[in-house]
Amino acid sequence: MKPPTSFTSVHDVDQLDAWLDQAVAYQQNPLQDQHLGRGKTVGLLFFNPSLRTRLSTLRAAYNLGLQPIVMDMNQHGWQLEFADGTIMNQGKAEHIREGAAVISQYCDLIGIRTFPSLTDRETDYAEQVLQQFLTHTTVPVFSMESATLHPLQSFTDLLTIREYQRKAQPKIVLTWAPHPKALPQAVANSFLQWMNAAGHSVTITHPPGYELKTEFTEGHPITHQQREALAGADFVYTKNWSTYAPYGQIPQPTTDWMVTTDKMSLTNNGYFMHCLPVRRNVVVTDAVLDSPQSLVIEQANNRTYAAQVVLRQLLKGTNGFKSASSGKRRT
Amino acid sequence: MKPPTSFTSVHDVDQLDAWLDQAVAYQQNPLQDQHLGRGKTVGLLFFNPSLRTRLSTLRAAYNLGLQPIVMDMNQHGWQLEFADGTIMNQGKAEHIREGAAVISQYCDLIGIRTFPSLTDRETDYAEQVLQQFLTHTTVPVFSMESATLHPLQSFTDLLTIREYQRKAQPKIVLTWAPHPKALPQAVANSFLQWMNAAGHSVTITHPPGYELKTEFTEGHPITHQQREALAGADFVYTKNWSTYAPYGQIPQPTTDWMVTTDKMSLTNNGYFMHCLPVRRNVVVTDAVLDSPQSLVIEQANNRTYAAQVVLRQLLKGTNGFKSASSGKRRT
Amino acid sequence: MKPPTSFTSVHDVDQLDAWLDQAVAYQQNPLQDQHLGRGKTVGLLFFNPSLRTRLSTLRAAYNLGLQPIVMDMNQHGWQLEFADGTIMNQGKAEHIREGAAVISQYCDLIGIRTFPSLTDRETDYAEQVLQQFLTHTTVPVFSMESATLHPLQSFTDLLTIREYQRKAQPKIVLTWAPHPKALPQAVANSFLQWMNAAGHSVTITHPPGYELKTEFTEGHPITHQQREALAGADFVYTKNWSTYAPYGQIPQPTTDWMVTTDKMSLTNNGYFMHCLPVRRNVVVTDAVLDSPQSLVIEQANNRTYAAQVVLRQLLKGTNGFKSASSGKRRT
Repeated sequence: MKPPTSFTSVHDVDQLDAWLDQAVAYQQNPLQDQHLGRGKTVGLLFFNPSLRTRLSTLRAAYNLGLQPIVMDMNQHGWQLEFADGTIMNQGKAEHIREGAAVISQYCDLIGIRTFPSLTDRETDYAEQVLQQFLTHTTVPVFSMESATLHPLQSFTDLLTIREYQRKAQPKIVLTWAPHPKALPQAVANSFLQWMNAAGHSVTITHPPGYELKTEFTEGHPITHQQREALAGADFVYTKNWSTYAPYGQIPQPTTDWMVTTDKMSLTNNGYFMHCLPVRRNVVVTDAVLDSPQSLVIEQANNRTYAAQVVLRQLLKGTNGFKSASSGKRRT
Repeated sequence: MKPPTSFTSVHDVDQLDAWLDQAVAYQQNPLQDQHLGRGKTVGLLFFNPSLRTRLSTLRAAYNLGLQPIVMDMNQHGWQLEFADGTIMNQGKAEHIREGAAVISQYCDLIGIRTFPSLTDRETDYAEQVLQQFLTHTTVPVFSMESATLHPLQSFTDLLTIREYQRKAQPKIVLTWAPHPKALPQAVANSFLQWMNAAGHSVTITHPPGYELKTEFTEGHPITHQQREALAGADFVYTKNWSTYAPYGQIPQPTTDWMVTTDKMSLTNNGYFMHCLPVRRNVVVTDAVLDSPQSLVIEQANNRTYAAQVVLRQLLKGTNGFKSASSGKRRT
Repeated sequence: MKPPTSFTSVHDVDQLDAWLDQAVAYQQNPLQDQHLGRGKTVGLLFFNPSLRTRLSTLRAAYNLGLQPIVMDMNQHGWQLEFADGTIMNQGKAEHIREGAAVISQYCDLIGIRTFPSLTDRETDYAEQVLQQFLTHTTVPVFSMESATLHPLQSFTDLLTIREYQRKAQPKIVLTWAPHPKALPQAVANSFLQWMNAAGHSVTITHPPGYELKTEFTEGHPITHQQREALAGADFVYTKNWSTYAPYGQIPQPTTDWMVTTDKMSLTNNGYFMHCLPVRRNVVVTDAVLDSPQSLVIEQANNRTYAAQVVLRQLLKGTNGFKSASSGKRRT
């Protein structure tokens, strides 16, 4: 495995099977690489709320002997300016150019969590915040969910599917489900990207108008008939997202899309998956979520080991970097 | 000592003397069990403000080699839904069922701090938040103050009394004192519960109308005459609380209840105790608080050792639990 | 080097050269004193936002094996009352007397960050918050920027100047620069204080009306002609501050004070310095900030080593203190 210099999508993974094997090794013995992070810090920068990502990444860091430095960016520091050439005479006190370079002086690895605006598609899909950090940091950066992708979640999902699959080519369904708020497309985009990389076809089902960006869906069958899609499914990956075009809307579908026991009965005794948090009796019924076929807690558990592999790989890559823990650096 | 699987009241303590002895051992040598928490994490979940509890529990965790994961629940994650069967189409994004199970994947122990509503007595005394965590977590849970009890504080108070008592059966007084805001009954309830368990009678004094729930007061003398209660006291435990019936009110008493030097002179050179924070010159005068008879800082100091014993006992109990640090778990 | 019992200004440094040498030693080998903080905690108390100070001090603490306890004072705990003798029946729940004493029970060192009001000069220059902590804590206290001084920044600045100076007596200029908000005088005051202690003369330049307190400027040349001041400069330390008299105002200067490439061309190929955060194209142009002569990231990097020396010195001083990590304390 060649250490990547950043982790923002599946494209940063050179050998997916080796990464999955390493995750399984950490499931068995999470503390086997306690020495790896000794004397090093990981900065976790949150522009948005987080429970699973925050806790699992902290746990993964501790498992590797890394010391965490958590910044809630909207509370602890200064508002960041991301545009170049601006005359900074308004509310924002610090430019990303300094912000990112400065954080690089104190952290050996930097994780970023940033949500999309859902109002400006071009900016969101350009991943402005993440890209600016990638440009201006001098240490490895990893995504803890970006505007359009959530690779730590998808790595976890793939790990969980590999663990529970009963045949080489399981039927995997990605189904849209209802939600009262406009949500990002990141989890769905990223799930498709990772399934693709792992050679899995995914049957996609959503109401008309909820088409995802074709970059992510091409090669996968798409249907507006949820029940048809669910027939014979081994895994039912459920997720809400808002529309891609027009961007960030939530038109009400004409049929009901909540995942129910009745619908799950169409599957091949399929597993229910969701990245969480999940709104009960809106996205999915209590009965499905509380059934033995639900893997949502197993997915959450695997977040630790997925994050741990990513941190491990980036740490192995820091030899080529100017390291905060090996003394004075220049930028 | 048999390790408990949770710590929410004195009823989770099997041998109170042994717990007190262990606290004294930690006073003498706080780092003696540094190995105990190695590779393990403690999640500290705050639904409400905290200074002493937050810092002393962090210190206790570090003393045991535990790695802390702090969540300020109203700021960092998602609003939790506690009611079962709800259609979650309003503001709350995550159900306690998932929330608690998920946190259990990353933390070997979980501490919860949650205050009462002071508007709905039944819900408060049912300890809804704490009980839901107890039900849905898969690792040991401890209270960092709940709606109606504050066992870490009371353990500390008992430890402090044992340290300063000059006779086997000291006269211990619990006196109500004024406060501008409606406060919980938790500290008073819990104090009585622990004194009871330790075989101490407590003379309770408060204005008419401030009767605590009889479950906590029975067996203890109660008077509305503060001066009478203070006569000959060895320890004056002072605390404000709002009324139990009607619930959460703060009727003005007809006499003054602030603790003063004059009142303290009625005691047997008694010690002044308070859990802090304390409002000076409202609850108690500067003179009393700054006198050598005040034990408030000693109480605060003992918080560390009380928390450390609780964490120790729960850690010893984790052998029987599915542990986040011993590899992959199922729920 | 004699260990100080607090660090709030250059006056707490007995041998400046030895402190600088120690910082250089940490630049080369940051982990050489990993044992020093074992079993000890440092409390970092933030009353105001912080990025560099928060992260660099955390990094420095980890480098020394110290465990950090971070409190965002306006979010996590209780509002503190600083006035003595007050009847505390308003919004503030805890007095600094208890607050500071209590935190001392859990932390072996305490860092405080507090900004000035910029409305009441007397109170600000009396350093009320910091002084109250100094009075009521029982462990060493260090400033992470106070109302009128920022010694960790200035120590860093001196370290950076020593690293980059090309002659024994470089020309150092402190120039005021524009800013849309009223800012403290702390960085400028403190810079002058440390340069003085190091035997450096500083040419001060600012618009009329922006005179700093004479305590800090005396002995240094002052001019209102920025270009004249910059002529032949080896270091251009740039900073905005609001007026000292009348206090906290920001009258618009009649000429432009932004630092530009044109102005830098007047210098002796001088280095540009700023403590950050900096407002681009208001305080200084992009071109200057992005030029090889800019030392702002190097300054940020040195924050770690400056903080590490301060923590080290205070830790060495804790032998004479009642230590939280050596068992039960009395106050």
